[in-house]
This record gives sequence, structure tokens and C-alpha cells, in this order.
Amino acid sequence: MKIGFIGLGAMGSGIAANILKTGHEVVAWSRSPGAVEAIEKRGAKPASTPEVALQADVLFSMLASDAAMREVGLDGPLLERAPRGLLHVNMATISVAFARELAGAHAKHGLGYISSPVFGRPDAAAAAKLTVMAAGEPREIERVRPILEKLGVRFAVVGDKPEQANLFKIAGNFMIASAIEAMGEAAALLRKGGVDPGVFFDVLTGGLFAAPAYLIYSKIIAGKKYEPAGFKLALGFKDAGLTLAAARELEVALPLASVVHDNFLESMAAGWGELDWSSLAKLAAVRAGLDD
Amino acid sequence: MKIGFIGLGAMGSGIAANILKTGHEVVAWSRSPGAVEAIEKRGAKPASTPEVALQADVLFSMLASDAAMREVGLDGPLLERAPRGLLHVNMATISVAFARELAGAHAKHGLGYISSPVFGRPDAAAAAKLTVMAAGEPREIERVRPILEKLGVRFAVVGDKPEQANLFKIAGNFMIASAIEAMGEAAALLRKGGVDPGVFFDVLTGGLFAAPAYLIYSKIIAGKKYEPAGFKLALGFKDAGLTLAAARELEVALPLASVVHDNFLESMAAGWGELDWSSLAKLAAVRAGLDD
Amino acid sequence: MKIGFIGLGAMGSGIAANILKTGHEVVAWSRSPGAVEAIEKRGAKPASTPEVALQADVLFSMLASDAAMREVGLDGPLLERAPRGLLHVNMATISVAFARELAGAHAKHGLGYISSPVFGRPDAAAAAKLTVMAAGEPREIERVRPILEKLGVRFAVVGDKPEQANLFKIAGNFMIASAIEAMGEAAALLRKGGVDPGVFFDVLTGGLFAAPAYLIYSKIIAGKKYEPAGFKLALGFKDAGLTLAAARELEVALPLASVVHDNFLESMAAGWGELDWSSLAKLAAVRAGLDD
Amino acid sequence: MKIGFIGLGAMGSGIAANILKTGHEVVAWSRSPGAVEAIEKRGAKPASTPEVALQADVLFSMLASDAAMREVGLDGPLLERAPRGLLHVNMATISVAFARELAGAHAKHGLGYISSPVFGRPDAAAAAKLTVMAAGEPREIERVRPILEKLGVRFAVVGDKPEQANLFKIAGNFMIASAIEAMGEAAALLRKGGVDPGVFFDVLTGGLFAAPAYLIYSKIIAGKKYEPAGFKLALGFKDAGLTLAAARELEVALPLASVVHDNFLESMAAGWGELDWSSLAKLAAVRAGLDD
Repeated sequence: MKIGFIGLGAMGSGIAANILKTGHEVVAWSRSPGAVEAIEKRGAKPASTPEVALQADVLFSMLASDAAMREVGLDGPLLERAPRGLLHVNMATISVAFARELAGAHAKHGLGYISSPVFGRPDAAAAAKLTVMAAGEPREIERVRPILEKLGVRFAVVGDKPEQANLFKIAGNFMIASAIEAMGEAAALLRKGGVDPGVFFDVLTGGLFAAPAYLIYSKIIAGKKYEPAGFKLALGFKDAGLTLAAARELEVALPLASVVHDNFLESMAAGWGELDWSSLAKLAAVRAGLDD
Repeated sequence: MKIGFIGLGAMGSGIAANILKTGHEVVAWSRSPGAVEAIEKRGAKPASTPEVALQADVLFSMLASDAAMREVGLDGPLLERAPRGLLHVNMATISVAFARELAGAHAKHGLGYISSPVFGRPDAAAAAKLTVMAAGEPREIERVRPILEKLGVRFAVVGDKPEQANLFKIAGNFMIASAIEAMGEAAALLRKGGVDPGVFFDVLTGGLFAAPAYLIYSKIIAGKKYEPAGFKLALGFKDAGLTLAAARELEVALPLASVVHDNFLESMAAGWGELDWSSLAKLAAVRAGLDD
Repeated sequence: MKIGFIGLGAMGSGIAANILKTGHEVVAWSRSPGAVEAIEKRGAKPASTPEVALQADVLFSMLASDAAMREVGLDGPLLERAPRGLLHVNMATISVAFARELAGAHAKHGLGYISSPVFGRPDAAAAAKLTVMAAGEPREIERVRPILEKLGVRFAVVGDKPEQANLFKIAGNFMIASAIEAMGEAAALLRKGGVDPGVFFDVLTGGLFAAPAYLIYSKIIAGKKYEPAGFKLALGFKDAGLTLAAARELEVALPLASVVHDNFLESMAAGWGELDWSSLAKLAAVRAGLDD
Repeated sequence: MKIGFIGLGAMGSGIAANILKTGHEVVAWSRSPGAVEAIEKRGAKPASTPEVALQADVLFSMLASDAAMREVGLDGPLLERAPRGLLHVNMATISVAFARELAGAHAKHGLGYISSPVFGRPDAAAAAKLTVMAAGEPREIERVRPILEKLGVRFAVVGDKPEQANLFKIAGNFMIASAIEAMGEAAALLRKGGVDPGVFFDVLTGGLFAAPAYLIYSKIIAGKKYEPAGFKLALGFKDAGLTLAAARELEVALPLASVVHDNFLESMAAGWGELDWSSLAKLAAVRAGLDD
């Protein structure tokens, strides 16, 4: 199978490298020539334009946002030059509305489209330890399932409409942000009451909350180590916006999601966009009159 | 050591039984004669009044609330009849302000006082699988540490002021309620978007959220099994009130805690006080126009 | 001066009629032929297409939303057929981002553009009792000031960038929605405490709150007369979305605006989109377990 | 009629002076000897203890809080020394729960009790321009109606249970705080968008919001003049706490009230307790990254 790949950022590079390991031919394009060179060394063919990468059986894309996809033309213009039978597997975290629009645009051009976003950071992408979701036409998913299963340790089909995978991904990120917010508020309360949050998190992550999400972020919060960012607050803010957009469209009031969103927003205004998104905890502390 | 025990509810009975196993003499009182009889069969001596139970080296108490403790007189009146050198180990989930008041009242009467609340439900209390916290004068904690360590699988000293253990406990319950609220909002969003929350929770609890708090409550939420209650919503509402009271006193704004509190409040108004406190998820669903 | 007019809904019809009274020639277009006929009887010339209305010195438009303007092509396509020197006065309540986009699109085509939204309902539009704001290039505003001043009882220039007038309008609607939310919550609290909200509102609107916003809406709320709608909840929901979109773009956390938005959202999910937007008060009541 | 008066703070002094003008004999006590001397000069008899002031037909009291009333003993101890037939008119802003407790304590001692809180600041108290509410047994209210009507420009009977007047007062303060919060958020949004909030408030208070609450506070907010305080933020915070306590007891979820409360709380943590309560607007600005 000939596979096109568009978008070789921190996530995309790792994923493309793991696709190469499945033995398929990969033609890759990225805005960054360095990233293309790097994947070329691992066996991929470089594509000089997105259109070149498009000439394949299956196109994987991993771009940063709705806007980045529109810029490349994957919302329509580029699709006109796609070969018959192309299946586009979009792994990006995009809005539910845009996923629906993409599905429609591909259908209009007679192309296949599934959404297949992932949970996991760049190191998990490189190590094929992602959690991979997929939604769309079952037969299309089956076509690429063998590849998707190789990209992570967990694979789940979550719906037959592509945008459902995006909703799934958005809801997952909301869960993490909510956990961070809870840890941040608890830490601020405890600190002002003279209790060490480190002891608190030790007790909790040794029992009811013995899960990676709490182990990872409680350490950052107790140690106030918001730099370097594992996941930038500006990206968390973007995702919180996607959650509220989906909630608005589906008519589901989510007060906790609104609190999380507003706190990201206040953190952006404070200039913390480049810090780790767990800086929600820093905000809780500053609000309580603590130094940080 | 002669040990008095006041409060043989679902939690207290299990704890008292485990104290008996440490070999100490236990004199127990409860408002419920049946509970006293039951513990008598396990080897305790029955106390006809709280005052009788008070004639000991150490008094353990496990009552339902600030109000229940005042009713028995443990905030003052009863203390006048306590023997010299008595140490009171209070395991109840009470307010931070009341814990401080209790510490003061005991000091005034020359008595020892430590707070030692626990995490865990009645079955964990019976099986000695609780998480036990303690705060107060270190020497007093050491006096009862051998007993406290036998009541659970985890024991942590969290501060040298008794009320700090209560703050710790309150913060812990806030963490659980926040996790429930997040699961509830995510489930409502997914359901309205046509995605099965069960699949969502399977994926999450198989990875980042692989912790008891999420495993237990996601199952209840996905299955909408809010009855019988493992922990009644009315009690969750009480604890959410303790969180906000502590936050107010310590001057720490907790927007997520306010959302959780308001949602418990709305659930109370809906008459759901006897349902499991994970009915926060039911509220999120009803708000979204789903049946429940 | 030859004036084009696009959009003859409830608001537009009244405004167009008042422009006619200034003695200028008016060429009007609307999606609804009935509306065009009606304004023709008052002296306007009918335009068979938007493009015909565009052939003027000044174009006024009053369409329902960003989407309605895009549909007509005022975001670009239609502008290509505009005469040199045209000044577009946009009176619609649109998003800040779209206003900025429109300003750019007009500049690109060498056309003038100012935003001039209004406060007031259809009856105020017909009676020339609106409050009219304007923002944009001062010289352009001066060109149409004599007309704008005739459309209402109050006229204010609020900035030199068109989108500032839209921000102003959005903030004004947020003020009204906030007042409604406050009245609704107060009424629910009082009712559950056995106090008549009517007495409460009488006292308040006789003193500190003796203003039209409170007089109008407190009467609706105390009487629970949410039908027929003076301003539909679905439109309030749209405007609440514009507020949050502007807040997000400008990085200003607005917790009250989020509460109002979420309550509109919940009301939409309840199927109340056609009720008056003061149904926020109905939601507060239902939440409290009151019948409505 | 012989009238006792307890509590000669900024509000009480003005009210006591106006009661003197009704021709009744007034015996006044205050913790501050200076305040007693001042009212003595206006014709009152000084009381050396609260008990002396209590020997009257009617006792008016105007103390700062639940705690201040307990300190004086008006919740019980002092009542034992009250003359038969005494009617206590309590004008303080106290909690609903405490008002209920007071009504019970007075009934137990065979004394009359009505709540009669007021709207208005010290200057309005001195000028007899208050809004006066009353709730309780109708015959008791009628006994003092002639006096109460002389204390302000508006008098309203709002219920037959004393605590209903307190709920009414609390709801009124919530309305003002909500209006301030709305103005503060709108001002922050506009400022970040480059629009002068002064122009905005001019337009609004010239129309839909032409009411004292908006005229007074918009001027403070637009001018950022939070000192000297007309009403201290610490008091607003106290009242916001009373609102949430009443809401909790009556089971009415009030999300806007929670936002207002949390913002007062954050302002307290910032050390702004002595600023005017309209500093809620300062908080909105600081959150947006504006200087203040």
C-alpha cells in the first residue's frame, strides 16, 4: 500500500516512523524541510508539495489545528487533485464541526475519510505507545486497522461518524484538564492551611487516584515545575475551546468545562501560554494569594 | 490500654472491631443499642452512656457530623467529666473550624486531641483497608500510632494541628467529587454526540485514568446505577459544604469546588439526596435534555 | 444621496422607513418579497437582487448574523460589484472577529465600512427611539451621522475601528442578560423562602434599580410570562456566544458571562429557544425544584 | 413609647436620631462611648449596659453581624432580663438561619421579634432616606410601623416570618453585587478591546440602565476610584456568604451568586477587604492582564 503523510511535527514524525516499520511505502510532506529530511533518512520518500503526498492509497495527516488544515487545502482545494479511492486518515485534534465538514468535503470528491486522533505525547508517538481511536465508515476503518494498531498499545473504534472520534478525543482532554484543575485547587487549599500538597498527592496516588494522569501532574504541581512544558498551556486552551464549541453545538451545558476554559483564558492573559498546561494549578495558587 | 469508643455506625463498627483485634480493652457506646450489642459480641464492653465510654486512656469517636458531636457533648460539656490524661482521637469528617474549636476545648480541659479521619467505605473499614490520616501533637499521635496503623493499609501523619487532617480529608473528598463531575459532563457530551460513554471510560481507565476512583464511578455512571448508594449524595453535599467553608475561612477561591457544590445543591432540590453521589452525572445528563 | 438597504426584517424595516423620512432615495432588498413590497409603499425603490441595492452612495445592511451576511456575499463576493466610493454601514449584531474581517474585505475592495449596531427592539426601531452606536474611520462616520442620528434618541461614536461598535453592542447585551440572570436567581431564592418576588421587584425598581431593564424584565419574571417572546432565547444564546468569542479572542476571563452562556445553553437543550430570553429565570426556578 | 436602642455605628446613629425626631423617649447603648455621647446630645438617654437599654416597650438593634449580636447576648442570655411585652425590632443584616433562631429565642422568653433590615448607606440613614423592610407577626409590625415609616422613603412589609425580611435584604444585596460584577466584566472586556468604558456606561445609564445602582457604581468603576470605600468589600463578602448560606439551606442553586462570592473571596485573598466592594471590577481587570 502506498501511504502519503502530511504533517511531520513532534507527533507526526513519530507516527510516520512507525508506519514505515509496517513495511508500507511512505511519501511524506511537511512545512519544515528538516522534518522531511529526517523521515527520508528513515526510509520515506520526500514529497515536494502536499499534492505529491496525496498521490497514494491512503493519506495520513497530523496537522496542528483546523486552521493548519485549511491552509494546506485539505478542507477542499487540495482534494480536487486526489486520486480516486483515496482514504484520508486524519489524526489531528480538530473541532467536531470541522471534522463533519471534512467528512462532507471528502464525500463530495468521492474520497474516503476517517478521524483517528490519539492520546499520548511525542515520546509515546515515537515509542508506538499511543492510544489510538478511530471513527467513520467501518469498512474504511478496517482498511487501515492493521496500521493503526501498530501505532499504539490500545486501539478503539468509537463510532461510525468520523467526528465522533474527535468528540472522544476532546472529551478525553477535558478529563485531564479537569483532573489538573482539581489538583490545583486542592493544592492551593492545603498550602494555605499549612498542609504539604506533596503528602496529599502521595496518599491519593497511592490509592484511589493511582493513575498516570494523577502521578504525572501531581508531581509537577507539588514541585511547581511548569517549565519546560510537556504540553503547552496555549494548546490546552485551544482544546478547551474545542470542548466548549462541541458542547455548544450539541447543546450540553458543561459548567466544569467552562471553569477550566476560563482559567486557561486567564492564564493566557497572564502570559503563561508557553508553560505546561498544569499551570492551572499556578493560577489557583496565585488567586489564593500564594506566591505561585 | 483502655479504649473508649463513641459512634458505632457503619464506619465506626468496623473500626471498633479492628481495634478489638489489637488486644486492647474497648468500652463502646452508640445511640443505637443494636450496634452496641453487636460489638459486645465481638468482645467489647457496652457503655450505657457516652460518659462511661469516656473513662479510658484513649477515646476514639466516629460520629456523623459537627452537629452529632455537639449533641453528645464532645465539644465541651462531656469533656468536664473526662479523666486526666485522656487522649481523644476523632475520626469523623468534620469541618476545619469545628476541629479547631474541639482542639481548643480539649486543651482547656487538659485533654489530648488529635484528628484522624479516614478514606474508605464501610467495607474497607471492616476489612482494615482504610487510608488513615492523623494530625496533632506528634507525641499524642505516637501514642496511638500502633492502633491507627492496624485500621488500614496506609497511614500518614499530615500536620501538627488537628484540623489539618480534616482539611486533608475534605480536600480528598473534593478530588473524588471533581472526578465524578468530570466523568458526568464527559458522558453527557458523548451521549449527545452519539458516542457510548462505556467505550470512553474503558479506554481511559485502561490508560491515563487507570485508578479505582475512575474505575468505580465510571461503571456506575455508564450503567446509570445510582441506587443503592455507596455514598449518599446528601453526604457528598455535606462534604462539599465543608470544602467551601474551609475555602472561605482560608481565603482560597475554588471555582471547581463551587460548581460541584452547586450541582449537589441542585440534586438535593431534585430530591436525589438518597442516591449515590455520582448522581452528579445524572444531573449533567438531565441538563443536556437526556432522559437521565 | 442614494442609499441601498439590505435586510428588511423586524428591525430593518423600521430603520429603512426612518431613513426614507430623511428624504434620501432608498433602494431596498430583502429575502422576503413581502417586506420589499411593504417598504416600496412607503417610498423606497425595490431591488430585485442585493447587487442592485449595492449601486448606491451608502449601503445600510441589517442582517441576522455572520452566516446571513456570508450568504448574501457581503463578506467578499458581492463587494466586487460595488461602485467606487461606496460606504457600507452595517447595523447587524455580528461577532467582533467577523466585523474585523468585513472591515478588511471592504478595504481590499477600496470600499468604506463602519459598524453601527443598535440597542432597541423592533418597536423602538419603527419609532426612531433606538440607541445607535458607530465605530470606524471618523470621516466615514461623519458622512452618515445626520442619518444615524435620525434613527434613535441617542447616538454615540464609540471607537475608530468598526469592530469596537460590535464589542460595545455585545457588552450591552451581556449587561442585560446578566441583569436577567440576577433577577431570576433572586426570584427563585425568594420564592423558596416564601417571599413574593413581585414585592421584591417593586421595592427594588422603586429605588436602586429604577431602570427600564429591571422594570421590563422583573414584570415578565414575577408573572412568569415568557411567551410571546420580546427577544427570543435562541437569539440571546447567539449573543452570549458572541460575548464568549470576543472574550476568548481578547483574552478576558468572564465568569459571569460563562454562567449566563451555560444557562442559555441548558435552556436551549430544554427546548426553550422560542421563549423570551428572560426564561433564564424559569431555569433558575426549575433548578430549585419549583414548578417553573 | 419608651424605646431602647442597641448599636450606634454609622447606620444605627442615623436611625436612632430619626427615631428621636418621632418624639419617643430613646435609651441608647453602644460599645463605643463616643457614639453614646453623640446621641445623648441629640436627646437620647445613655444606657450604661445593653440591659439598661432593654428596659423599654420596643428595642431597636442595629449590630454588625450574627457574631456581634451573640456577643451582646441578644440570642438568649440578655433576653432573660427583658421586660414583659418587649418587642425587639432587629434592623441588622444577619443570616436567615440566625433570624429564625432569634425569633425562636424571643418567643421562648415571651417577647416579640420582627426583622426590619434596610437598604441604604449611612448618609441615607441620617437623612431618613432608607428603604425599610419588615417581616414578622403583622400586629407587631403595626405597633412600630409609624416609626419605621419615618426612617426612610419607602416601607414594605415582606412576610409574616421575621427571617423573610432578612432573605429579602440578602437578595437585594446580591442584586447589587451582581450588577457590579456585570459592569466589571464588561469594562474589562471593553478596555481590552480599546473601547472606553466611560462611554459605554454613559450610553447605558442614559437608557436601559438609568438607575442609581448603575450610575453610582459605573462611575467608580470607570474612574477606578475604589477608595475610600462607600461599602467595604469585606462586608460585601460577608453578605455574599449570607446569600450562599440561605441558598444552601433553601436548596436553591445560584451559580451567579457563587461566582460573585468566589470573586469576593479572591479579592479578600488579594488584601482588598478595605476597598469598596465594587473592586470586583478591579479583579476582572487584573484577571484580564490590565494594570487594575
